[in-house]
Amino acid sequence: MAELSGNALVGQSGGPTAVINASVAGVIAEALNHTCIEEIYGTLNGVLGLLQEDFIDLAAESQQTVRALRHTPGAALGTCRYKLKRPEDFERVLAVFQAHNIRYFFYAGGNDSQDTADKISQLAKTQGYELRVIGIPKTVDNDLPVTDHCPGYGSVIKYLGTTIRELACDHEAMGRHDLVSIVEVMGRNAGWIAAGASLAKRRDHPNDPPHLIYLPEVAFAPEKFIADVQRVLKREKYCLVVVGEGLIDADGNYIAAAEATDAFGHAQLGGAGEYLKNLVEQQIPGVKARSCKPGIAQRAAAHAGSKTDADEAYLAGQAAVKAAVNGETDKMITLVRGDAEHYTCETGLAPLADIANGVKKLPREWINEDGVSMNFQFARYAQPFIQGETVVPHDAGLPVFAHLEKVAVEKLLPPHETV
Amino acid sequence: MAELSGNALVGQSGGPTAVINASVAGVIAEALNHTCIEEIYGTLNGVLGLLQEDFIDLAAESQQTVRALRHTPGAALGTCRYKLKRPEDFERVLAVFQAHNIRYFFYAGGNDSQDTADKISQLAKTQGYELRVIGIPKTVDNDLPVTDHCPGYGSVIKYLGTTIRELACDHEAMGRHDLVSIVEVMGRNAGWIAAGASLAKRRDHPNDPPHLIYLPEVAFAPEKFIADVQRVLKREKYCLVVVGEGLIDADGNYIAAAEATDAFGHAQLGGAGEYLKNLVEQQIPGVKARSCKPGIAQRAAAHAGSKTDADEAYLAGQAAVKAAVNGETDKMITLVRGDAEHYTCETGLAPLADIANGVKKLPREWINEDGVSMNFQFARYAQPFIQGETVVPHDAGLPVFAHLEKVAVEKLLPPHETV
Repeated sequence: MAELSGNALVGQSGGPTAVINASVAGVIAEALNHTCIEEIYGTLNGVLGLLQEDFIDLAAESQQTVRALRHTPGAALGTCRYKLKRPEDFERVLAVFQAHNIRYFFYAGGNDSQDTADKISQLAKTQGYELRVIGIPKTVDNDLPVTDHCPGYGSVIKYLGTTIRELACDHEAMGRHDLVSIVEVMGRNAGWIAAGASLAKRRDHPNDPPHLIYLPEVAFAPEKFIADVQRVLKREKYCLVVVGEGLIDADGNYIAAAEATDAFGHAQLGGAGEYLKNLVEQQIPGVKARSCKPGIAQRAAAHAGSKTDADEAYLAGQAAVKAAVNGETDKMITLVRGDAEHYTCETGLAPLADIANGVKKLPREWINEDGVSMNFQFARYAQPFIQGETVVPHDAGLPVFAHLEKVAVEKLLPPHETV
Repeated sequence: MAELSGNALVGQSGGPTAVINASVAGVIAEALNHTCIEEIYGTLNGVLGLLQEDFIDLAAESQQTVRALRHTPGAALGTCRYKLKRPEDFERVLAVFQAHNIRYFFYAGGNDSQDTADKISQLAKTQGYELRVIGIPKTVDNDLPVTDHCPGYGSVIKYLGTTIRELACDHEAMGRHDLVSIVEVMGRNAGWIAAGASLAKRRDHPNDPPHLIYLPEVAFAPEKFIADVQRVLKREKYCLVVVGEGLIDADGNYIAAAEATDAFGHAQLGGAGEYLKNLVEQQIPGVKARSCKPGIAQRAAAHAGSKTDADEAYLAGQAAVKAAVNGETDKMITLVRGDAEHYTCETGLAPLADIANGVKKLPREWINEDGVSMNFQFARYAQPFIQGETVVPHDAGLPVFAHLEKVAVEKLLPPHETV
């Protein structure tokens, strides 16, 4: 494989997570090792910055900042949900790559973002422009195919597990057998996050909360829900329910749908928790229902993040650079779990086309027959992802996160209109 | 002062917090120092346990458990919102005290709980039963009079400050000037918690979130709210709004009131955040609104708790025992701030009658003229409360909390009916 010299560009796309910046840190740190990578740029707001030549010089950032990215939530380069569609957008991307001699493109994101990376890769191939494109997996939703799991997922379920353990202490104190506490969690199409909440149960304490988990994978039936809650309240002092935002009924309709859709046409959800709360209050006289909705805070909760997750996100960033330098392109880094009893994880590669717009479903056989709890197979799968605690430095009582200097790279082309 | 020998009883009442167990730990640890305290019992679920003789032997708990109480949220003894009203309840309380030779009664709670402690103290005095009653302040609401601040408050605002810093990282990434993010926080009558969220701003970054804070102290005007949001969106990439659950309009009505009331007749609130979210979406076309509601999780978030807060809660528990042994009764422990520039805190005493059902309002002069931000006087007041991080041990990736053995004390009286 001939060495390919030129500049590298890294971007972030889709919803931020607690660890997507760790992947960027991994890219920056690994790029330093390879002289064939002459400059390492970041594109601001993903492909939007690509279209508008909004690049920053990541080599100008301090080592402290790069290190701090490993515990900084959000997406330090900015992100976007812009979808490349128009032919002039694709032409522009290539023109920008050529102008800045970008030969390495690293894109951290979920399904839609890997699709974008794939299209860019195909375009470069078609046009005969030598470019190595490597995707880096990212999504709290944990729904990318091929990879064992996705960076971002471990931290969100660790945070939710922590929250549920704390709610348990609080709710246990009331001791009235009349409290129903509902926690609405993220998860548009799949119940991975809601299922992850099941890790809050202590070993050998099957009656610990969450007592009931309602997943998008199981059609929601209000009568069964009320019966489930009543059964738990007879046994326990309170009933803690976890519900995924994307809960659907037997006809496949969202339980709590809003009219709005995002730029990719996905329904914008919210309110499944409030819906269940009202249902409980209406159907079970004398019961108090409380709901909480961590909302976006759950995907940003680096202060309760998983060290395993952050380390794997960093590893994925490093692996992307290594793979590209070794001549790989049009691939996404995957996380590959070892076969041994003791959890190990290394990286692999999968064609972007196998990832783009694919969705990994929560296996039905990991859900118990009651439809509202997870079995040991799920626990065995997910438990390793929440191990170890991310250490976030504090100043004056609050966490301190990285703020990039964002030294702009000079624009070389005339402006480009985006829609 | 003649030494009073007998048994001690400690109870918890009202809403749990992240540090009310630290106060109980302080009581238990200090009780060990005084031989006049023969037994140290805990009453389960506050006065409910008192009426039903549901006592546990706290001396039977391990030292590890007592130490773990210092970082365990909730209320390990159980709590209640039961209000002593009927003459037969008061007679019963005295009978139980006599039967178990309870001579020291420590009650950790908020306004209503201190009122209960005061009534018990008055009753004992009237009946000539020698009893020393010391209240221990507790409330995330920070609204007890006389005391400089209340254990529980520092931890909730530290958690919210942490969450807002993380939301800032997340929201900053989108960069579209069209996101309004609403965080609904606790605070039924006063805006102390909402105000505390202002600490999330970094020093010398006045434009950091929270950009707008809506307090129960300032009558809510929808037109001004929309204008406020639009002003922020012109300047910032997103607008982060903090709203107290007890927001009221110009007529003094709750913005988002439910029919339900709790056992003390307080309106059960919720939904101010969703209300503002809908208002934004209706009134500002093209804007995306997101809401999050940490709900009960905010008062239980020991994993992001304040060491200062937990230490002061422990100190208050110790001080309660010391005061009672020294002959004090019918008083509540207060937290007294030193006059020096550098924050110091010691304990004082105030008559329970001065605390019971009193409410400390957030000073109007600490709110800026814009009505939606706090000035330096508030920051100077509250900043010390969030200093230092509570260390919570983890096992298999999740926090481990204390679980009491709860060795029951033998009942000596016939059962008593409660309502």
